[in-house]
This record gives sequence, C-alpha cells and structure tokens, in this order.
Amino acid sequence: MREDDLLNLIRKELPLDDASIIVGSGDDCAVVQMEQKNLVLKTDATIEDVHFTAQDDLSDVGWKALCRPISDFAAMGAIPQHALITVAAPSSWQQENWLQLARGFGKAAHTFGIIIVGGEMARSPRKLFLSVALTGSAGPSILLRSTAQPNDLICVTGKLGGSFKSKRHLTFTPRLKEGQWLATQAGIHAMMDLSDGLASDLPRIECASNCSFILEKEKIPYHPGCSVEEAISDGEDYELLLTVAPDQWPNIQKEWHDHFPNLSLTCIGKILPPDHASSPLPPGFDHLK
Amino acid sequence: MREDDLLNLIRKELPLDDASIIVGSGDDCAVVQMEQKNLVLKTDATIEDVHFTAQDDLSDVGWKALCRPISDFAAMGAIPQHALITVAAPSSWQQENWLQLARGFGKAAHTFGIIIVGGEMARSPRKLFLSVALTGSAGPSILLRSTAQPNDLICVTGKLGGSFKSKRHLTFTPRLKEGQWLATQAGIHAMMDLSDGLASDLPRIECASNCSFILEKEKIPYHPGCSVEEAISDGEDYELLLTVAPDQWPNIQKEWHDHFPNLSLTCIGKILPPDHASSPLPPGFDHLK
Repeated sequence: MREDDLLNLIRKELPLDDASIIVGSGDDCAVVQMEQKNLVLKTDATIEDVHFTAQDDLSDVGWKALCRPISDFAAMGAIPQHALITVAAPSSWQQENWLQLARGFGKAAHTFGIIIVGGEMARSPRKLFLSVALTGSAGPSILLRSTAQPNDLICVTGKLGGSFKSKRHLTFTPRLKEGQWLATQAGIHAMMDLSDGLASDLPRIECASNCSFILEKEKIPYHPGCSVEEAISDGEDYELLLTVAPDQWPNIQKEWHDHFPNLSLTCIGKILPPDHASSPLPPGFDHLK
Repeated sequence: MREDDLLNLIRKELPLDDASIIVGSGDDCAVVQMEQKNLVLKTDATIEDVHFTAQDDLSDVGWKALCRPISDFAAMGAIPQHALITVAAPSSWQQENWLQLARGFGKAAHTFGIIIVGGEMARSPRKLFLSVALTGSAGPSILLRSTAQPNDLICVTGKLGGSFKSKRHLTFTPRLKEGQWLATQAGIHAMMDLSDGLASDLPRIECASNCSFILEKEKIPYHPGCSVEEAISDGEDYELLLTVAPDQWPNIQKEWHDHFPNLSLTCIGKILPPDHASSPLPPGFDHLK
C-alpha cells in the first residue's frame, strides 16, 4: 500500500477540522486561528520499551501518546486545541497496525476536543517511536510549579502506584477538566502532573519554588495491590499534584467533592520554608538511565 | 552525570528567552505571547539511518533537525518563532554527544531567530531519533500548494541533486528570507519546499491544485557532479518550488536578482489545465519504504 493511500485511511479516524482551522494537515505547515494571543505548547514522546511494549494494544498506545501532553495542559489549567503527531514505525507494519494506532489517537482527540493539524509518518530503524506536539490556549490563570508557598498543603488527585503492572498507564484519563477547574479556584498556588512519580516530581516543585516539604507517607492514597513505596516511586500516574493555601483548603475540599464526587483529592503533606530538611525520598526516575 | 545537570549544560547552548516568553522551558508546558492570532505549526522528524548516519557530525545533525521545519515555514512565507525539541538518544551517549547536538540546534536557532521553549530527553532503544515542533506567525500572505493556476510558470530556487552524497543535506540553508520575500510579491500563486525531490513534490502541487504540468528537464538547474535524473529524484534539496503568473515573471525575475544576487531562480516548466497529461516522472520517494 502506498503512503498516500494509507494516509487517506488514517485521516478518516482523526478529527481534522473545526472553525479554528485555516490550513489543515496536507500543506507544508498548518495555520490555525487562535482566540487569544497566549499560546501554550508541549511535546511528549512515547517510545517502545520505555513507555509501552510491543505486546500492548496499539489503540491504547495511541491514546497514551496523546493523553501524555494533555495531562501537562491539565497541570497548567490550560486548553489543548491542536496536535501534530509524528509516528516512526518499523517497516514490517501493516495497514491494520497503522489504523489501530490512529483509532487510539482519534479516540483521545475526540474525547478532549483536539484537532490533528499535521504530523509525519516515517520509517523507524527498529522500534515504534511516537512524538506528539500539542498547542492551545491559556486558561483564565496559569498554574506553575514555581509558586508554592510555605505552609501550603500538598494535595494529590486520585490514587497512586502500580500504573505499569495494572496497565493503567495505557488507559489513564488526564485530569483536564479537574485541572481547568482548579485553576479557577482561589488558593491553589502550584500544580504539576505526576508523570515520573512523587519521588521525582515533588522535588521539582521544591526546586522550582525554593522550598522544602514534609510528606506524610501514611496519607498517600494508593491503588489496591500496591505498597506506599510503589505509590511514591512508580510514576506514570498522571494525577495532579498541587499546593493549596491552608485557609482555602476546607472550601476547596467541599467544592471539589461537589464537582468531582468520583475522584478523591487528598492532602499528603505540607510545604516548608527552604531552610528546613525535606522528607527523604528514594532516588527519582532518570529519563536517560 | 545526572539528567538535570546535563540539561543545565545543554541549556547554555540554546536561546531560551525573549520578550515573547511568559513561561519558558522547565514547567509542564511553555506559554508564549503571540503578536497575532494566526498560528503556524509544523513538525519534522530526523532519524538515524533515514536522514543521517552515525558517522555524521552531531552538530550538523542538530542543525538539520531544526532547519527541516524552518524550510516548511519558508515555503509558506511564515515566521518561525518557538521550537519544542525531542531527542531520544542511545544510552551509550556521553555528555559531549549531547553538547555537540545542542550546539547544532543552538546555531540554527540563533541564525533564524527561534527560541527553544521546551522538549524532552529520552532513551532510545537503539538509534538516535529527533523530532522538532515549530510554531510561529503567518506572514502578510500564506502561500499554499493548492493554488497553482493553469499557465503559471514553475520555478525553483538554487540548484538540485546530490544532496546526500555531497552532505549538503546536513548543512543546507533553509530559504526563509527568500520565501518570506516571495510571499509579498504579486503573481506568486503556489509554493512548497523541495524535501522529497521534484519527482515526489511536483505531483503534490498537481494533486492539491487539480492541474497538470510540463517539466522542461533540460532547464532544471543541477549541482556539478549530478545528473538531471538525480536532480529530479534525489530529494533533500530544501529549495523552494513555486508557480508564478506568466505576466508577473519578468518583474519577479528582475526583483529577485536585485534582492538575492547569489541565488538563482529558474523557470523549469509550466502548469497546465487538469485535462492534460503531465510530464512522466520516476516514482517519488515513499517515507514508509
């Protein structure tokens, strides 16, 4: 099958057009009309034998590859709109492999209102390699990692741990509407998504905000079948990690429960001034090891 | 060396900030301020054993990886501004490999006024894999592939052929200022960049514009040491292919020479109505073969 014929089949699985599209996929570049001038950008790679294995369902792999950067948008309370998708696949791939992968991308794009404006199909020398660039608009406020304040409570959405062994890492739901809602609430000071695990990600808030922290391990919510150590170190949870002004916490807790009755929001520690010693954590995930 | 220490060294090689940056690299997403609401987007992958070999200079590889999407911006007369860079490298890589690659990215970014707003360093199971997403603004007009008109002259910048064997494919200069200038001229109807070669790319204008074409092979400008067949089929020239209203051609030719005395602009054929037979061409490049 020729590349152009395959591409036409793949395109049928993907949302390619809406009112924002001036030039969609198929020309040298895409051109889109933004509603405002603040542009949010993120790229995330999804790599065989790092983020999935050859045994995983390709539709799940496509879902994950698009949901990874969506989770970063969630962490800023931002609005993802347009995606560019790069797929480098082994030359052994058949039409059905491509279509399965495209269905996963299409499902995620439809679920979260994202238009695919371009991308590339290439040969991979060996393993499947996916890269997604996502652009969109800032929400009414932008939540950063660098703005945690001493005495803030450290909170986490959902439960942590065991994402790889349970295959949740392939089917997770990015906390987009939750992150967008949190960005509208008074008293949320800092936020990020938990992709590498608390052991890696909490020190990133510590470093960016120039603070220390106490982690109350017994409060960490973990999935059945996991240990608290796995909840701290496993990563790939794609839950939100945030810091909250303590006087706003009772109100946020109540409002959260009203808006998201099926997802927990749990206080697991506290931000301290920088001259304190932070709770010891195991070494974090290193992407290059 | 830890990932974070290496990243700090790499960052020194790259332009990371200008007046447009609200949140630069280091948080979940980047946030930039656009000057206008028309956003241009492109992604291009650069893959070992497809676009370069392990023997090539990594600084040249970084240059090429960023210049590939810049060439697409050139083809639309658009203004590239912000890049996201993904690098998946073999675990055998040392600090010096990363820094050499970063210097190539940095040189291209400085040359063309691009700020690096984020990206990712990852392990590759085997081969080096680079993906660059580039965003920016539309110029005063946007040149497409789909707007060629019958009787337009088909023109090409520079010379074609032999890009791989001469290593020009690693050190080419994207025709950014030329493309931006052409987009301001009356009578330029369609434009694209020549990345896959005339044999692949001219039929893309034919298809998008619903037209046919005559190619005058004896007029195709080729590099010394190449045949005209190589100029048609080799690809990786990153010159501009454009169609020009015949009555505007004398004026454009004169103005071009005044603006770009060191680069040729050559007429190599003509657009015909769709009911004509196009000049036969060898099979084009297929990215999946």
